[in-house]
Amino acid sequence: MSIISALQQDSDGLTLEWDDGGSTSLPAIWLRDHCQGAECRDPGNGQRLLNITQIPTDTRIKEAVLRDGRLLVDFEPDGHHSEFEAEWLQQHCRDLGRQHDDRSERTKLLWHGDSFADGLPRCNYPAFRDDSVHQRDALRAVRDYGFVLLDAVPCEPGEILRVIENFGYVRETNYGPLFEVRAKIDANNLAYTNLGLGCHLDNPYRDPVPGLQLLHCLASSTDGGESVLQDGFLAASILRDENTEHFEILSRQWINFRFRDAEADLRSRVPFIEVNDRDEIIKVRFNNRSIDVIHLPTAQLAAFYPAYRHWAEILERERLQVEFKLEAGQLMLFDNTRVLHARRAYAATGTRHLQGAYSDLDGLYSRLNRLEQSA
Amino acid sequence: MSIISALQQDSDGLTLEWDDGGSTSLPAIWLRDHCQGAECRDPGNGQRLLNITQIPTDTRIKEAVLRDGRLLVDFEPDGHHSEFEAEWLQQHCRDLGRQHDDRSERTKLLWHGDSFADGLPRCNYPAFRDDSVHQRDALRAVRDYGFVLLDAVPCEPGEILRVIENFGYVRETNYGPLFEVRAKIDANNLAYTNLGLGCHLDNPYRDPVPGLQLLHCLASSTDGGESVLQDGFLAASILRDENTEHFEILSRQWINFRFRDAEADLRSRVPFIEVNDRDEIIKVRFNNRSIDVIHLPTAQLAAFYPAYRHWAEILERERLQVEFKLEAGQLMLFDNTRVLHARRAYAATGTRHLQGAYSDLDGLYSRLNRLEQSA
Repeated sequence: MSIISALQQDSDGLTLEWDDGGSTSLPAIWLRDHCQGAECRDPGNGQRLLNITQIPTDTRIKEAVLRDGRLLVDFEPDGHHSEFEAEWLQQHCRDLGRQHDDRSERTKLLWHGDSFADGLPRCNYPAFRDDSVHQRDALRAVRDYGFVLLDAVPCEPGEILRVIENFGYVRETNYGPLFEVRAKIDANNLAYTNLGLGCHLDNPYRDPVPGLQLLHCLASSTDGGESVLQDGFLAASILRDENTEHFEILSRQWINFRFRDAEADLRSRVPFIEVNDRDEIIKVRFNNRSIDVIHLPTAQLAAFYPAYRHWAEILERERLQVEFKLEAGQLMLFDNTRVLHARRAYAATGTRHLQGAYSDLDGLYSRLNRLEQSA
Repeated sequence: MSIISALQQDSDGLTLEWDDGGSTSLPAIWLRDHCQGAECRDPGNGQRLLNITQIPTDTRIKEAVLRDGRLLVDFEPDGHHSEFEAEWLQQHCRDLGRQHDDRSERTKLLWHGDSFADGLPRCNYPAFRDDSVHQRDALRAVRDYGFVLLDAVPCEPGEILRVIENFGYVRETNYGPLFEVRAKIDANNLAYTNLGLGCHLDNPYRDPVPGLQLLHCLASSTDGGESVLQDGFLAASILRDENTEHFEILSRQWINFRFRDAEADLRSRVPFIEVNDRDEIIKVRFNNRSIDVIHLPTAQLAAFYPAYRHWAEILERERLQVEFKLEAGQLMLFDNTRVLHARRAYAATGTRHLQGAYSDLDGLYSRLNRLEQSA
């Protein structure tokens, strides 16, 4: 742990100097706003009790000293006294620009078709369910790679909902709490036929889109029907490398998605590529079947179409794709804001039956955060 | 309905001239991409069968004619023939720049404290449940104003989950499928005390944030505990009117929210004010209790704090707020991406018991879209 070696008071606040080099300048208002005392933070649940509007606009530092590595500050004009622990300062002030964003490409391991020569990220389901270290490692795979395969999931209809209980909550949709993926007559969605499906993400017409998808294989005796996965964050970063302008167009000019059947009429206006405040990729979308009419001013269409085509073309590159056959008892759990999936066409003879369900990333990350902290 | 009166073919595509004035220029690639024929769109479910990568880059119009108000187009080089119905063209091409976005401020009726002198938007619950016209009008109120009050909801614990079944799905969270709002010992959240709570939106530390919240009053015999609602879209538009730079800072510089207890550790990086691709407000966030450490580069903090303070200050303006007392049997349903809620402190004597639950906007809008179409 680095330690504060010196303190410098200036007109706007303080500059902390670290013993291993470098310094951090903190405005007085930031320090006052982050007081950890019992008047400002609930000691039990850690929630903030102080509202920014209660802090005087002209807040200044009257006096600041270091004592046993702790920072003691007296503020003017409200006369408030704050104490900051060395560990807290180290964790939160060392680099104010390095924010926490568990959705950003920066925190992921991007992959392509050859990345898993030593095997796909996988976990035995009974171990996942019963052992927190196995579960932590599997959830880390979802965070890092965007997916994990679970083996030996009991082939019971509805088991998929019990799998979700390990880390989060079922996100019910118009397809039900879970949905049956098998060939149907008069399917309301092409997913429920034996046709091949290109790489896509599910439900882009939902806002918010379900952040996690699960597909559990109950039977697999047909020829074909192989599963394909693809890292949409890598694909978007390739687009940015190949043509920065195309990347910017797809993050700044949004499009509509839509799904209609007898019961539902779901419509969204969202970007193909979503970035955070530092222009890092945080979500991608693509689903050819459900792109609605493209509404952009005519003047923008000439530039939009090449960008859109480029994005779709990268998503068809086979070297970015991992292909495998999901066998009965296997379940794939993947980040539906990042990992595209596809399915090869399959024969009309034999049985292919998957059950699918959705959940959300926030529940999974919350569970993973707790497992990391208790490790 | 306006009708196409003339057609002009140019190097890039077509220009449609409308009988009531004005014209629309459509690139050939847009027309080819929007072919409504059975090869390009599934006739049953309307899903898109054609991928942009299957359309030649150098797509041009070979010939285009109007016949009975329909537009017939032959494309080169793929020789594809498309026919567009007059009604479809009118609906989708008249103004290509006017996209559908049911979350945008543009589609809302903004309100302040005096807007409901004639009464709050409300609906009798049995009518809401049993009559599609009443339900449609109540859901329109949620779309337009961001909230509706339902009266005569049976005071049965758990009834709130049955209310959600009318228009969508329960979004379960770490607080359960539903949560009990009443004073508790050692509350993990200040909501579960008898303290007053300032105007806030729930769960900003969840990504995605639940888009709808319901609060159902089962008992209300304490002094105090009045409910307050406030239009966050109006508040954000006031911020923009008063200081454009402050508005831009809060939409472009994101912050972290966090909630921790024994089970959960939920963290998000999101903006206070979220805008769409046309800089229209689509979501707002504020929850003083759960703002995490503010991580922005020091150089940005000096400009960020006045913007943040300005936003918090607008959210305290009483003339923007509507106050009322929720009585037993009443339920408020509100857009948790737009409408802030607050609660006055209440006495320790008597009983105040609410049940709360979350759902999502997409399900509600889907239901409303179907009700509008069947009307």
